[in-house]
Amino acid sequence: MRISELSAQTGVTVPTIKYYLREGLLPEGERTAPTQATYGERHVERLRVIRALLDARVSIAETRRVLEALDAAPANAHDLLGAAHAAVTPPLDEGLDLADAERLVAGLGWRPGMCDPAVLGDVARALAGLERAGFAVSDDVMPVYLDSARKIADAEIAGVPSESAEAAVRYVVLGSVLVEPLLLALRRVAQQVASAERFGGAEH
Amino acid sequence: MRISELSAQTGVTVPTIKYYLREGLLPEGERTAPTQATYGERHVERLRVIRALLDARVSIAETRRVLEALDAAPANAHDLLGAAHAAVTPPLDEGLDLADAERLVAGLGWRPGMCDPAVLGDVARALAGLERAGFAVSDDVMPVYLDSARKIADAEIAGVPSESAEAAVRYVVLGSVLVEPLLLALRRVAQQVASAERFGGAEH
Repeated sequence: MRISELSAQTGVTVPTIKYYLREGLLPEGERTAPTQATYGERHVERLRVIRALLDARVSIAETRRVLEALDAAPANAHDLLGAAHAAVTPPLDEGLDLADAERLVAGLGWRPGMCDPAVLGDVARALAGLERAGFAVSDDVMPVYLDSARKIADAEIAGVPSESAEAAVRYVVLGSVLVEPLLLALRRVAQQVASAERFGGAEH
Repeated sequence: MRISELSAQTGVTVPTIKYYLREGLLPEGERTAPTQATYGERHVERLRVIRALLDARVSIAETRRVLEALDAAPANAHDLLGAAHAAVTPPLDEGLDLADAERLVAGLGWRPGMCDPAVLGDVARALAGLERAGFAVSDDVMPVYLDSARKIADAEIAGVPSESAEAAVRYVVLGSVLVEPLLLALRRVAQQVASAERFGGAEH
């Protein structure tokens, strides 16, 4: 199909499609003339994934790396997960102290060397951010965070499809990133429900 | 203290402090001369909160609204939570279909009218993003998300301090927003741990 049809079918404007092509997010179409190319189903699907990632506030640079992880498709699901995480995790800052983060994630079953240090760095950065703001997660709440994270991850990893590499890639790469806004939104609704129950907020 | 001392004490450069003043994130200091102002402890603390919010990828505009929620300090903790959520939640798009989101959050104990429709809109947007990307959360995993969100919220809301309004404000406003990066980072580590266990990833 032509770029105009690709646009009509996906609802993404032609200038935006051209921008994704320039940014290397969308692979080039097949050239049919010096100024014309033809696009197929994989462009339609790729555009859907790009829009979903950008809508989930993933940056252009991170989206490019997530798509690279999708395309590279390491054979091993564990390596794939690492690639997906690395795509959306800033590199480890030198001098970031990981000791508190390591102590904390021991509660997840983590042991030294078990995961990408950059992902551990994300925990350390989050803890440092809380500390800078003078906010402490209480000893009653932190175990609930750890327990919930572990239960969520167990259910998710148990569901990694084993019938095809492509299905596993989509599940791991998109599931680890795209589900984040859903989890945060569910927490906010649950907070309002729990708050209404405790503080008797207005129910219209 | 002078702006240079405020900078030295917080590690935020003078041009950045001036930027926050212009953007209305940081209240003006007390004028001591036409071109000089003096700053106090509340500026130090406010700068810490601003940095923590921006580090947590909250936008400048959202940070301004979170700080307004901190300053307005509604008397009722439930209203306060609503104000904090509203500050970081985009307004409800017209035409966004909330039916699926409403069905889903019923599993959190939510009932019609119980929470800010904008927060429900966040759930609907997250679901729409997943659908656009052709990603479905399985029936085995979704109940775990709901159960975890509810357990997390219950623990958090049970911990809202009741001894002072100021403590409640800090807890609710900062806790609801600043904890998000920690929760996402813990999920990523837990996924790597669960994945190493299932797929026998390398352990160095």
